[in-house]
Amino acid sequence: MKRGLLIILSGPSGVGKGTIRKIFSEDERLNLAYSTSMTTRKPREGEQDGVDYFFTTREEFEKAIENGELLEYAEFVGNYYGTPLKEVNRLRDEGKNVLLEIEVQGATQVQQKCPDAISIFIVPPSMEELERRIRGRRTEPEEIVQQRLAKASNEMKMVYQYKYIVCNDDPQLAAELIETIILRHIELEENK
Amino acid sequence: MKRGLLIILSGPSGVGKGTIRKIFSEDERLNLAYSTSMTTRKPREGEQDGVDYFFTTREEFEKAIENGELLEYAEFVGNYYGTPLKEVNRLRDEGKNVLLEIEVQGATQVQQKCPDAISIFIVPPSMEELERRIRGRRTEPEEIVQQRLAKASNEMKMVYQYKYIVCNDDPQLAAELIETIILRHIELEENK
Repeated sequence: MKRGLLIILSGPSGVGKGTIRKIFSEDERLNLAYSTSMTTRKPREGEQDGVDYFFTTREEFEKAIENGELLEYAEFVGNYYGTPLKEVNRLRDEGKNVLLEIEVQGATQVQQKCPDAISIFIVPPSMEELERRIRGRRTEPEEIVQQRLAKASNEMKMVYQYKYIVCNDDPQLAAELIETIILRHIELEENK
Repeated sequence: MKRGLLIILSGPSGVGKGTIRKIFSEDERLNLAYSTSMTTRKPREGEQDGVDYFFTTREEFEKAIENGELLEYAEFVGNYYGTPLKEVNRLRDEGKNVLLEIEVQGATQVQQKCPDAISIFIVPPSMEELERRIRGRRTEPEEIVQQRLAKASNEMKMVYQYKYIVCNDDPQLAAELIETIILRHIELEENK
């Protein structure tokens, strides 16, 4: 069996990664799988270990970092979140194409560890449009909005690290472009 | 009948626009047409007026420029080359999607005159790869190669003026991405 692809889907926060992913993940030809993340945050009501997340302690998480067991990780509001390499490899060995929908910082880590990853960066039609989307999402203090915008602006500078750049002007088209990219890579892999 | 789309295909010279265009232009669903250019250069053996080019005099060409009859034009080695607006409009009015495969400078002119144009910029996988392609094309004095590279490097800066950016790492995939873009715009136009 052919080993599955590793696909990184990233882009500044607020750009619409989730919306696009929902559209193209319905395409069964892509044979996608999502790896379960590891976290130190407490399980919420109804969340199952090994399904929603691998729940772990801070100590264990830090040991996993030291042992190079995480493809990428980040800390948010005092909790660690990361992608276990073992999980990704297991799915790829089963022939699944693993999609990581991750933040820009995490994507950089994955690219360094897996140069064969197919990296896709979603960009907004313009920074003005991204601002409109960030402001439209919820009512937040101006200071927070400004922080988000500054972060997005910095994240945009990472665009050249990616193999493919897809503009999210029209989510349907963005999803179709990503489908085209993945299907072509599946084809190339099969003909190897 | 729906008016056809205007599609600009551009990118630095040497990037492989022609190769990609040959692949996707075989897709009949795209319903593409190519407008005949106007030139002041003399017809070569076997070239027909109105088919290969509209052959004209320098005086007439300059009058056409003054009257705003050209969507874009440029001068190469002492001869003018341009795209007559009338030709493009005639084809679009017939419902054809007009594709202009043009140099970066001409593309900027078209974008200014037709903000509704779907602009696609082909980028090389890297500047190193573009250099390899430019050098591989033919044997030229180092000075000319350096000029081409400097021009390409400048042209790359125009990337943000384009709606879509497609990397030509794999011409087949680049062609498929362009097909996806055009088909989606045809669909959007039909649903208007």
